[in-house]
Amino acid sequence: MSVDPGPRERIVRSALELIGTQGVSGTGMREVVGHAGAPRGSLQHYFPQGKEQLVREALALAGRTAVGSVERVREGGTSFRPSDVLDVMVAAWRRWLTDSDYALGCPAVASMADVGAAAPALRAAVEDVFAVWQGAIEGALRDAGLSPARAAVWGSVLLSALEGAIVLSRARRSLAPLEAIRAELAPVVDAQVAAAG
Amino acid sequence: MSVDPGPRERIVRSALELIGTQGVSGTGMREVVGHAGAPRGSLQHYFPQGKEQLVREALALAGRTAVGSVERVREGGTSFRPSDVLDVMVAAWRRWLTDSDYALGCPAVASMADVGAAAPALRAAVEDVFAVWQGAIEGALRDAGLSPARAAVWGSVLLSALEGAIVLSRARRSLAPLEAIRAELAPVVDAQVAAAG
Repeated sequence: MSVDPGPRERIVRSALELIGTQGVSGTGMREVVGHAGAPRGSLQHYFPQGKEQLVREALALAGRTAVGSVERVREGGTSFRPSDVLDVMVAAWRRWLTDSDYALGCPAVASMADVGAAAPALRAAVEDVFAVWQGAIEGALRDAGLSPARAAVWGSVLLSALEGAIVLSRARRSLAPLEAIRAELAPVVDAQVAAAG
Repeated sequence: MSVDPGPRERIVRSALELIGTQGVSGTGMREVVGHAGAPRGSLQHYFPQGKEQLVREALALAGRTAVGSVERVREGGTSFRPSDVLDVMVAAWRRWLTDSDYALGCPAVASMADVGAAAPALRAAVEDVFAVWQGAIEGALRDAGLSPARAAVWGSVLLSALEGAIVLSRARRSLAPLEAIRAELAPVVDAQVAAAG
């Protein structure tokens, strides 16, 4: 490649973190460049289509990060339970919330909340993040023994519960909402293995 | 009262709707006044502390609206099940999502997503909305037969699941995520009646 991939990657990562913390409308392009320690001119160079392009790339990175956090369920060995999938999702967010002192939230939720309804391309990008993430959850649930139909429904239920709990935990500055979904839904998702569907 | 309550109330309602649709950062004070059909000068008159005051009042209205939607569970008669509480929560959002063509989301989530982490007074206001709303859910779950401890935990779980499902439904422009939490969590919350706690 003729250009150094360093600053571009740093800019996308900074956009991801700032959007997750303060939304899309609240995040200025100059702030992203400053946060990334990148030269101002690099924005036009790497993101000629402007802020929307940068937000879409940040959301794509969020999707890959979310998939990576789900894939950790396989680290412990070859066999795992459906509730282990929930556990790794919760573990990742427990860490992100505490490491950021509850400042960081989900960038997909933030993007949907402040620009998604008015910007079709960004709404579609948020939909893609959720689809990619839910796809990883579904795949892991199937590997843990759920039927495809049960895995599809519970992929959606677990993702909904996780996303809502992240917002509640940030608002309360407490992990209690996150721990509540883990404790209450773990036995229920495990029970789906035997369920018809 | 010496002032007409009409325009003030309309301004708060417009702020609620605009924040739920496009977040706090994306909503300008002039836009709120225009949406409410109120004279520009009424902002300074009714909200001398500015945008933060208006956002806090909009969030307080959101809390009262949420409580009202939960209280509808009592309309059908004197006896109801825990899953009826979930049903009225889902029914309210099914209507708001479809009536707005998926533009409207929860203003508490929007406020947390774009300004909550940086503005302590607004984060506290969001926490209050969730506390008031969850309190209403807990009270209804207790009336439906759950122990106080089970009602507290499931108030949090149902609120998390609902909030996440609203975001997913908006992103997908589909009620499927909302219907999934209703279908899957209804039997589970009903089973909490018999559970120890």
